[in-house]
Amino acid sequence: MSLAISQRGQAMPASPFRKLAPFAEAAKQQGKKVYHLNIGQPDIATPPSLFEAVRQADIRVLAYSHGAGTDSYRQKLAAYYHRAGIEVSTEEILVTTAGSEAILFALLTCLNPGDEVIIPEPFYGTYTAFAIAAGVNIVTVTATIDNGFALPPLAAFEQVITPRTKAILLCNPSNPTGHVYTRRELEDLLGLCQRHGLYLLSDEAYREYCYDGARSISALNLPGGEEHVVVMDTISKRYSACGARVGSLVTRNKTVYLAAFHFAQMRISPPGLGMLLGEAAVDLPESYFDENRAEYQARRDLTVARLQAMPGVQCPVPGGAFYVMAHLPVDDAERFGEWLLTDFTYENQTLMLSPANGFYQTPDLGRQQVRIAYVLNLNDLAAALTCLEHALLAYPDRTLAPQAVAATAEALA
Amino acid sequence: MSLAISQRGQAMPASPFRKLAPFAEAAKQQGKKVYHLNIGQPDIATPPSLFEAVRQADIRVLAYSHGAGTDSYRQKLAAYYHRAGIEVSTEEILVTTAGSEAILFALLTCLNPGDEVIIPEPFYGTYTAFAIAAGVNIVTVTATIDNGFALPPLAAFEQVITPRTKAILLCNPSNPTGHVYTRRELEDLLGLCQRHGLYLLSDEAYREYCYDGARSISALNLPGGEEHVVVMDTISKRYSACGARVGSLVTRNKTVYLAAFHFAQMRISPPGLGMLLGEAAVDLPESYFDENRAEYQARRDLTVARLQAMPGVQCPVPGGAFYVMAHLPVDDAERFGEWLLTDFTYENQTLMLSPANGFYQTPDLGRQQVRIAYVLNLNDLAAALTCLEHALLAYPDRTLAPQAVAATAEALA
Repeated sequence: MSLAISQRGQAMPASPFRKLAPFAEAAKQQGKKVYHLNIGQPDIATPPSLFEAVRQADIRVLAYSHGAGTDSYRQKLAAYYHRAGIEVSTEEILVTTAGSEAILFALLTCLNPGDEVIIPEPFYGTYTAFAIAAGVNIVTVTATIDNGFALPPLAAFEQVITPRTKAILLCNPSNPTGHVYTRRELEDLLGLCQRHGLYLLSDEAYREYCYDGARSISALNLPGGEEHVVVMDTISKRYSACGARVGSLVTRNKTVYLAAFHFAQMRISPPGLGMLLGEAAVDLPESYFDENRAEYQARRDLTVARLQAMPGVQCPVPGGAFYVMAHLPVDDAERFGEWLLTDFTYENQTLMLSPANGFYQTPDLGRQQVRIAYVLNLNDLAAALTCLEHALLAYPDRTLAPQAVAATAEALA
Repeated sequence: MSLAISQRGQAMPASPFRKLAPFAEAAKQQGKKVYHLNIGQPDIATPPSLFEAVRQADIRVLAYSHGAGTDSYRQKLAAYYHRAGIEVSTEEILVTTAGSEAILFALLTCLNPGDEVIIPEPFYGTYTAFAIAAGVNIVTVTATIDNGFALPPLAAFEQVITPRTKAILLCNPSNPTGHVYTRRELEDLLGLCQRHGLYLLSDEAYREYCYDGARSISALNLPGGEEHVVVMDTISKRYSACGARVGSLVTRNKTVYLAAFHFAQMRISPPGLGMLLGEAAVDLPESYFDENRAEYQARRDLTVARLQAMPGVQCPVPGGAFYVMAHLPVDDAERFGEWLLTDFTYENQTLMLSPANGFYQTPDLGRQQVRIAYVLNLNDLAAALTCLEHALLAYPDRTLAPQAVAATAEALA
C-alpha cells in the first residue's frame, strides 16, 4: 500500500523568503559580501535588560504556564497596551507563541474550512501558509504602488465578498509596503465588516515603527469594533526579539477569546523564557522606541532618497515598518534577484532583495517590484544601495531607456 | 450582520486537565493543602546547567533561526538520538515548538481533513484538540485495565480501518497508562501499517522513563518502518523543561519531512532560548537519567503498592512514564474528583486526580478510573495516597462491599 502526504502538505509552499537563499550561500562561499535587504530580521541589538531578566530569574522547574500566558506577563502586557493608548484587560490578552500562532489561532477560530479571508495585496507572503494550514482561502484586492499602497476602494472589497467571506485581514503598519492605514481607511473597513458581518483581523507587529511623527491606529481603538476586531501582535520586531517567539492575540470578543484560548490550551503554554524577556521589555523606557524610530526613519529616508534618484525606479515613501516596495527597471525582479547573487558584484559586494511576486497572490502582479528591508546600519545600507545602483545599469535585461543608462553611467563614473 | 466563530472553534474542548481546577483553587483558598496528582508537570528540578547555558550565552540579537532549528541544536539532537540507540541525521530532525507542534505538524502533513487516525484509548486527551485543529477524526480501539492496557488485538484495528484511515498514533511509553509497548506489539502494528498503507505516528515524550531495567523501543528502530514512522518528541518531560517549548519531529520519510518543514517555515523558527536549553541538556551525563529513573521508579512502586492495598482498587503495574491508571470503587470518578476538592479533607489535606473520562473517546468508558501522576516527592506522595485511602472510605457513593469498608476502617483507625 502506498503512502501519500496530505493535499495541504503538498500545497504548503516553501518560504518565499528562502527561494534565493541557496544563491546567497553560494555567493558567500565565493567570498562575496552579500548585503541582506531581503528579510525583516532587525539588526538592532535586543535590549540587554531583556537577557538580564532571564539571567536573574531564579527558576527551579521550568514549568508549563497557564495556557493564556503567565499572569505576571499578561499584567505587564495590559500595561504596555495602556501606554500604547489601547485599553484592554488581561482577560482580553492571550499570550501566543509569536505573532505566527496568533495568526493561526485567529484563522482557526474565526473561519471554517473553505471560508474566505480578504487581504489587500501585496501582503506578507506567509499568510498563504497559514491559510493552507487552516484550510481557508485568501481572496485579494489589489493595492497599487501609484498611491503608496493605500487601502483599495471599498467597492473593490464589496465586489469580492461572497457568502463564504468571514474576515478581512490587514497588516498595519504594513509588511511589505510600509503603508500606515489612516483612521478614515480603518473606519471605512470596519464599517464594511459591520455591514457584512466580518471579522477584522489586524496584524500590528510594527505598531511603534511609524515615521514623521505619525502614529499608527490600532484596530482595537475603532469605536464599534468590539465584536469584530482581533489583533495579532508580537514582540519580535518591537524589541528585536524574533527568536523569543512571544506574541499575543487581543480581542474584546469574548466568544472568540474563549475559543482561541481553547486552541491555546491544546499546546499547553507559550515559551516560558520568552515571556520573561517580554516582561522585561515592557519596562523599557519610551526613549527606547524614540531612538529606534529615529534610526529606522534615517534608514528609510536614505533608502527612499537613493531609490528615487535611480532612473526607472519608482518608490513611494512608506510611513512605517522596515520596508520599502520599489518598482525596478528590470524585466523580472526574481530573475534580477538571482542574477545579483550569481552574476553581479561591485567591489566584490552584492545584495539580496525580496522579489515582490512572493507578496502577490494574483499571478504576474509585482513582477517588476521588490521589497527592500532596511535592517542594516546606515553605512552598510548606503553601500548596498550603491551596489543596487550599479547593478541596475549592468543588468542585461534592464528596461531603462538608453539615454537614462548613459546618464546614469556618467554620473556613477 | 451576525458574527459566529468557526465550527472547529466551537468544537474545541476546554482542556480536560483544567475541569477541576476551579474547585482546587477554591479548596486552597479555604486553607486546604491540595496534592496535585492530576497533571504531568514534573516536580524534579530542571538541571541547573540548562539555565547556566542560557546565562552564559552572548547574544546581540535574538534572531530567527532556521525553520528546522539551529544547526548546532540539530547536531546535538542527532548525538542525543545516537546515544539513545537511534541513528538519524540532522536532515531527519525538525526542531518544533514542543511536542505539541510536532503532533500538529504530523497530523497536518499526513492526513487530509476528514481522514481518520486510529488511537488506542485511553489516550492523552489533548490529541482530541489537535485532531479538531487539523480537521481529522480520531477512531479508537479500546485497551483494557485487565491486561495493563496492552496493545488491543490487531483484529480490533482491522475492524475500524476504512478507506479514510491514514495513520495509527501511539504514545510509548504511554500517557496516561504507563504501558511500554513491547517489540512484538510494535512490529505487529508496523506490519498492519505496511499492509494498509498507514503512517505510524509515535509520541515518545517519555522515552527514558521505563522501569525495572526495561527500555522503550523507538518506532524509528523498527526495521522496514522508514516510510511509515514519524516520531513526535519533546524535552519537556525528559529534562523537566515543559516551559521551554522545545520538541522535535523525526522521520526518515523525506516527503513527510519536507512538507513538515514547510509547515515549520510558516512559523519561521522554534523558540531560541529553549533551543539553548536543549543543547545544554544533551550534554548531561547518563547518570542524570539513572537518578531520575530511580526516583520515578520508587514513586511508581509506592503508588502501585499503596493503591493495590486499597480495597476495591484495581491498578496494573505500569512500565513507564509518570502515570498510574487505577480503577476506584466509586460510582463516578469525575464526581469523586470534585468531591475530593469540595467536601473532603483529611488532616486539612486533599488531592486532585485526573478523572479518566478525559482519556477515553467512547462515552462512559473509564467512568470509574483515574490517572494518577506521581510528580510529587515520596513524602508528599505518601501523604496524598493516605488522603485517597481515607477518602475512598468516606465517599458516600462508594461501591465497596460493607465488609471491605469495615475492614479498611479498622485498619486505618
